[in-house]
This record gives sequence, C-alpha cells and structure tokens, in this order.
Amino acid sequence: VRRAVLFVPLAAGLLAAILSFAPEAPRLSSETRTAAEELRRAALSGSRASDWVQSLTDRAGARLAGSEGDRAAVAWALETLRAQGFANVRAEKVTVPVWKRGVETGELTAPHRHTLALTALGGSVPTPPGGIEAEVLEVDSLEMLEAKGAAASGKIVFFNKKMARSRDGSGYGKAVPVRSEGAIRAAKQGAVAVVIRSIGTDNNRLPHTGAMRENPTPDKIPAAALSNPDADLLARLVREGGPVRLRLTLGCRTLPDAESANVLGEVPGGALPEEIVLLGAHLDSWDLGLGALDDGAGCGIVLEAARLIGRLPRRPRRTIRVVFFANEENGLAGGKAYAATHAGELGRHAAAIEADSGTGRPFGFQWNAGTSAGPWLAEVGTLLEPFGANEMKAGGHGGADISRLVTAGVPLFGLFQDATTYFDIHHSANDTLDKIDPESLDRAVAATAVLAYCLADSPEPIERIPAAKRRLPRW
Amino acid sequence: VRRAVLFVPLAAGLLAAILSFAPEAPRLSSETRTAAEELRRAALSGSRASDWVQSLTDRAGARLAGSEGDRAAVAWALETLRAQGFANVRAEKVTVPVWKRGVETGELTAPHRHTLALTALGGSVPTPPGGIEAEVLEVDSLEMLEAKGAAASGKIVFFNKKMARSRDGSGYGKAVPVRSEGAIRAAKQGAVAVVIRSIGTDNNRLPHTGAMRENPTPDKIPAAALSNPDADLLARLVREGGPVRLRLTLGCRTLPDAESANVLGEVPGGALPEEIVLLGAHLDSWDLGLGALDDGAGCGIVLEAARLIGRLPRRPRRTIRVVFFANEENGLAGGKAYAATHAGELGRHAAAIEADSGTGRPFGFQWNAGTSAGPWLAEVGTLLEPFGANEMKAGGHGGADISRLVTAGVPLFGLFQDATTYFDIHHSANDTLDKIDPESLDRAVAATAVLAYCLADSPEPIERIPAAKRRLPRW
Repeated sequence: VRRAVLFVPLAAGLLAAILSFAPEAPRLSSETRTAAEELRRAALSGSRASDWVQSLTDRAGARLAGSEGDRAAVAWALETLRAQGFANVRAEKVTVPVWKRGVETGELTAPHRHTLALTALGGSVPTPPGGIEAEVLEVDSLEMLEAKGAAASGKIVFFNKKMARSRDGSGYGKAVPVRSEGAIRAAKQGAVAVVIRSIGTDNNRLPHTGAMRENPTPDKIPAAALSNPDADLLARLVREGGPVRLRLTLGCRTLPDAESANVLGEVPGGALPEEIVLLGAHLDSWDLGLGALDDGAGCGIVLEAARLIGRLPRRPRRTIRVVFFANEENGLAGGKAYAATHAGELGRHAAAIEADSGTGRPFGFQWNAGTSAGPWLAEVGTLLEPFGANEMKAGGHGGADISRLVTAGVPLFGLFQDATTYFDIHHSANDTLDKIDPESLDRAVAATAVLAYCLADSPEPIERIPAAKRRLPRW
Repeated sequence: VRRAVLFVPLAAGLLAAILSFAPEAPRLSSETRTAAEELRRAALSGSRASDWVQSLTDRAGARLAGSEGDRAAVAWALETLRAQGFANVRAEKVTVPVWKRGVETGELTAPHRHTLALTALGGSVPTPPGGIEAEVLEVDSLEMLEAKGAAASGKIVFFNKKMARSRDGSGYGKAVPVRSEGAIRAAKQGAVAVVIRSIGTDNNRLPHTGAMRENPTPDKIPAAALSNPDADLLARLVREGGPVRLRLTLGCRTLPDAESANVLGEVPGGALPEEIVLLGAHLDSWDLGLGALDDGAGCGIVLEAARLIGRLPRRPRRTIRVVFFANEENGLAGGKAYAATHAGELGRHAAAIEADSGTGRPFGFQWNAGTSAGPWLAEVGTLLEPFGANEMKAGGHGGADISRLVTAGVPLFGLFQDATTYFDIHHSANDTLDKIDPESLDRAVAATAVLAYCLADSPEPIERIPAAKRRLPRW
C-alpha cells in the first residue's frame, strides 16, 4: 500500500514534466533568460523613460492631432529615434481630423448665479456666439434619458454619472457611454445641448474632455464636461426642486483634415529580421494638458524598452519595431493607417505590445493570443515576478492603437498598470510632468523589455489569435 | 536629613497651590464647566457647521468684495442670523474696493510654444489688449531681484519661490512677500510685468490668486500667478539656457468703490450684556473658487458655535456677538470699518475669536492677551483636551479681521487648525464644498464654543493685551 501511494505522485510528476515539455509551449532558452535578466536589471536600476517623457512634453506640449504641438511631437520622435541609433526611422503619413477648442464658458443663471468650470467634449459643435441658455434636465444614464421622452425637448441634458475609482480602471468603461453617445441620444430627443459630469475620479475644478462618437445625422448639439465639483453643485441645486438654468458658450470648431504621421524606428532582429515584435504608444494627446501620462508615459516606456534591447550584446532573433501612433485620441486614425499600410506584413508581426495606461506601477500584461501562449507566458512571468509584474490576464485588445491588428491574428499585449489615480488626471489640464513617477516607469520598462525580448527571441512565435476570435472592438 | 528632604517638595507644592489660586488667574465655576461640556458634547455629536457652508456657497458662490456674490452673501447672512433667532441682527455699511477679473491668457512663445495656466493677482492692472510679450528673468526672491539691477529692465520677472508644506502653514508667510511686493519692486527696476509661482502647495493646474500691496506710484505693472506645474515647466526651460519668452494678456480692472457690509448678530449676555465676546470670520472670498474653506468654513464655525450657545438653558454673563466681516481678501475694509464703527465700545470687548484657517482639524488657539490669561487658558484647555484641541500658543494677531482690535487691548484668539492641505486649495478655483471635512468642522465648533462660553461667563474678564504690546501688524 505504501509503495502504491508513493507511486501515484511520482507518476503524476512524470506526466506533468512530460506535458510541460510539450511542443505547443515553447520554452525560454538560457540565452534568452540571461538577456532578459540583464534588461530587467538595467531598467530597474534607473532607466531614462521619465527623461523621454520630459523631453517630449517640454518640447511639444499639448499635441492634439493636427495641431502645432502634434507636428512638434512628430519632429521630436524622428530626431530622438535617430539620435538613439534606431534603424529604419521614418514617418508614415496619416490623415487626421482637426478639431480646435475655442472660448468656453458656462454659468448657472437660476436659482443662483455661479460660474462653472467646463470644457467642450472632443468634436463638439459650437454654440451660437451668444451661447445657449436653457433649463437643465438631469439624468444618470442613456436609459434614463430614453425614459424621459419628450421631457428632454428644449433642455440642456445633464448626464450625472459618477465614475468609480479602482485599481484596474474598470469604472471608466462603465461611465464613458454618456460621453460617447450622450449628445447623439439627447439630440434625437430634442435637447439643445449636453453637459456631462467629467469621466474622472478627482475633485479638482479641471474638467475632463474626451472623444464622442460621431453623430451621423445633421442634428448635432454642443456637448461639454463639467468638473466634478461643478457637477456636485448643479446636482444639489436640481435637488432643491425649482427650475435650474444654465448658459453655455462654446467656440470650438472642426477644420479641414491635416497631415500627421506614425513614427517608426527599429532594432533589427539577428536571425529573423523580417519578423516583427511591435512596441506601441500614441504620440498625440488631448489639448488641455501636456499628455505626460496619456500617453507620454507610454512613449517613454516603449522607447526606453527598445533602446535597452538595442544596447544588448546579443540581439533577439526578431526585429523590435517602435511605433509612435498618431491621433489615438480623436478617432484612431494612426492605428487604422498602420494596419492598412502594413497589411502585407501583418502575418509577420509575431506580437504587438502597447503601453497606454499612464504612470502607475505595472502588475503584468493583458494578453490575447492562442491558448498555448498561456504556459509560455507563465514562464516569462517568472522573470517578472521579482518586481511583481507577473499578473497575466487573458482578454482585452492590447491597446487602442494596436487593436486593429486583431484581424490578422497578431498576438496582442497591453501593459497592465495600477490605474487607481490615473483617471484623476486623464484628459484634463492636470496631465503634466510632475505627475510622472519615474520609479514606476522603470518597472514598466523592465516588464515591457523582458516580454518584448522573450517574444522576439523565441525560436517559434507564440500561437496567434484563433480565427474565431479575430473581432474588432466596437470602437 | 530625611525630614528636610521631604519638607522641601511639600513646601513647593503648597506654594504652587497658593499661586494657582492667585486672584489674577480667574477659575472656571462648575456652572461654566457644565455648560461648556454640554456645548462640546452637542458640537461633537454632529453640528450644522458644514450645512451653513453649503448654504452660503451654494447660494452666493464666489463673493469678492463688491460683486454680485458679495451682495448675495450679505443677504444670506442677514436672513440666516434672523432665522436662527439671533438678536440685534444688522448690516453695517463698509465701503469696499472693486476689482474685476477679465480675460487672462498666457503662453510661452520661445523656446517652445506652451499654453500657461495663470491668473491675475488681486488688484493687478491690465495689460494692453494685445498683451505683453517679453523675455523672462527668473529670480527666487525680492533680494535676488534687487541684485539683478538693470537686468530686469524690459523683462517679465518670474518669481520662482516654492511654498513649503507644514502643519502650521508657516510656509505661507515665508513665500508671500513675492506676491505682496513683487510687482512694486520689479516695476522700480523697469520690468514690464511679473509672474509668480503660485503661493500654494498643490500641483494642480489651478493658479492661486491673492492680494498685492498697493503700489503708491503710477508705475504699475501687470502681475499674475502661474500654477505650480506651469512654474516647473518655465523653470526647466529657463535652465536650458536660451532665451525664454512669455506672452501675457490680462483684462482685469479696478472699478469705482462699492458698498458692502459687516453683518452682526448677537446672543445677549445674561448678567453683563453690554460686554462682548466677538466671534468673527469673513464673508467675502476670492473670485476663482467658491470660498468654502476661505472662509465659508470660518463662517460656519462661528455661526454654529454661537447658535449652540444661544440654545443653552443658561446664557453666559456676556454677549456673544457674531461678526461676518466684509472684504478681508482685498484690503481688510471690513475689519477696519468694524474697529472704527465700534471704537467707543472696544473697551467693553472682553475678547475676540476668529476662524479663518479652513477645514483642518483644530489643535487649539493662538492667543494674545495679558500673561495672567495663561493659567486660565490652561484650565479651559482641560475642556478641550478630550478631543485634542488644547494647544494654546501665545502670540499672533488672532486673525486679519480682528487684528485691528489690538490697539484697544482686546484679547485676541485665533482658532489653530491643521493647515497641512489648506494651501493646496486656498485662493484657487478648487475652493469648493467637496473639500470640507464636516467632522473637523464639528471639532472646530466645539473648541470655539467652549472657549467663547468660558470667556463670556468668567466673573472677571481675562487680562487685556498690555499697552506696550498693542501694535498693529504690518499689513
């Protein structure tokens, strides 16, 4: 009996050992591990990621697609990639929409007079020059607006939906439909304008802008975001029960499309240079802040990760391609253009990693690939575990810019960072360099460089997204 | 020998006991203590102080002297005091200066183009309509500007002095001279404008305004405060070494003086109604925020402390007089008018207490009175010790509004609160209701009500400020 008891675990152990060497789970070679450990050490001992964020934001500042800052950012990217010795540095043309903020003022005119801190949502149409004044109708959701029916007619609809704070930022997706869809729906019901509570978790008098879905009809109405304290005030006055009136003046406008660019640079692979591991972030930002977190941080992370790989004595097998994407914020023109321009070589994209979650401490990666990538990623995780970046979450789209590559089955990775305070800052004037945490960026560089190197150096590429799951996200 | 050793401490103890019963240190009666304990219990179990702050700020909003909000605040104060059953409710006319903010924009034009978050300092003259553009000269102090001599000529002087964070707010006094005096000094040296780093401890893109000393010469130049992140950016670009240029446009202007009011209400004393214990706070605020902390909080604290005293079955001997002062922020016209209007009865002011430090937890009081008040205050401290508000710091002026009463020797008290985060908010657009901590306000009410009751109920008033120390503060 004792022998049999001993035999069962021994046999199970042998079976597990055989399974873990199964060919569908490629393993890391000792050379790959050694190089990855060297990258980790280099990044964690102090990387230049935050210097890149400073260099980009000090020079280009706010850089909404088609703006002067956007052009300065493209110049910065080209110069910086060249100066750091990247190969095949180039700008690839992207046609971008141009939307320009103008004067923006808001005030409550009844029951008491108050100046409101508000800002136009991206793509909003302007008000007449004298503004729009109307009574306010408060709702908490698109569904509640629907239920109000004709009561919205002639009103300024106030979407009062609070975003919840969380480590994974999941409150954003729950709150954001009122921003994306609110103006379209309110216009259908005859409203004259929309104001929303900012999609943000702070209580500063700094409203958060962001994109709206384009209204396909001619019935466009102006839309703005109130800062959270202003939304609180408005909600309290509505609760008092009497009519609340608001005046809104927006001078924003849409101009003719302009040229911008995706900017690329490479660390050529040693054995399979035509196969590509893409490291992406977006170069553009909203216009209110300087885009230090969104997405200067991502630009700094992917640039530094690729730079450290390029300085290793031993190049990985595949090419590392850094892509600074144009216009993520206002329509994703850069991500779409990349997918179109590189359609012929997407089959040779072994993977794509995006960093677009700010300056929080990295916990690991969200990943979307064939299931056999799981055990392989778990082994990569052993290299990330010493600094707590080995959480591997299946699912997601990697990041907005690389999400279009799903149709070619390219394995997609999104750097997963602590987002607890990210939405305090995101899309607001507060997105400035002082908010950057250099030590967390170093960790993010370490995680990104290790994963990228392992992906690029693996003898066989990891399993691609299966055909049945190659679905574009809704946006 | 042993008996002698024993005898010495016994004698010392007896002497101490005799001294502590000396007539110059009046003691609290058991009736006073009982009433004070009841006030403490009532306040700590949940006061209405934060409701008053909400009621004031929701109705009047921003209320810079002479503005529509200022008039609404005076109306609020009269109505609220009457509705709460105060006696002798009245408005006393105060003539106030009127300064109105206009358009304000700033941008860096070299070496890189950036939009700057800035705001005019109180009382600033405007720029020409097209703005002023000039090279920037950075200095860290008035002394460093002096040392620059003619180098300031034709320049925009940038005072880059960082305010330090501390519990007692002492960093404010150290940083504020560049705001008060900077424009006067820079004008003397031929500068064309001044920008200062905000006197504030936050890193939001919300600049902090505040008063400047009036320039007695005709050589006035415009002056503005940059938010801290903008000051950081400007300083980094200056450190790069090349010329840095800034364009500043301010549309602010001074209008003719207007009428405002100090608003008074009383809880008449039971035995000595002609003797007064004043509880003061200021009703006005700067124009950027809603003045929830500065000084809505103080208004809520003193109103609620007096209201709770008025509800006691046993009135104190002296009258409790609440004074909501006009125009503390832009020249102290309310405090000066009160001292003038009431000059004849200042001899009958037994004490004055001011609350003007926001929403922080109270630690005790700063006090300025005759030295014999010390032991008496220590006994009052035993009533405040259970909630940690028994720190009694000798010195100070009580508060700006009551500081003019020093010349009549009126004992002055300033509620001493945790100021660690106060200067994140102070004088900025962020001064809104959501920043109020109701529980700390309850503690502040408890401390203020207990001290006020003890002062008002003491058989003899506490010793007044000695003649030699009756000096007005510099401002």
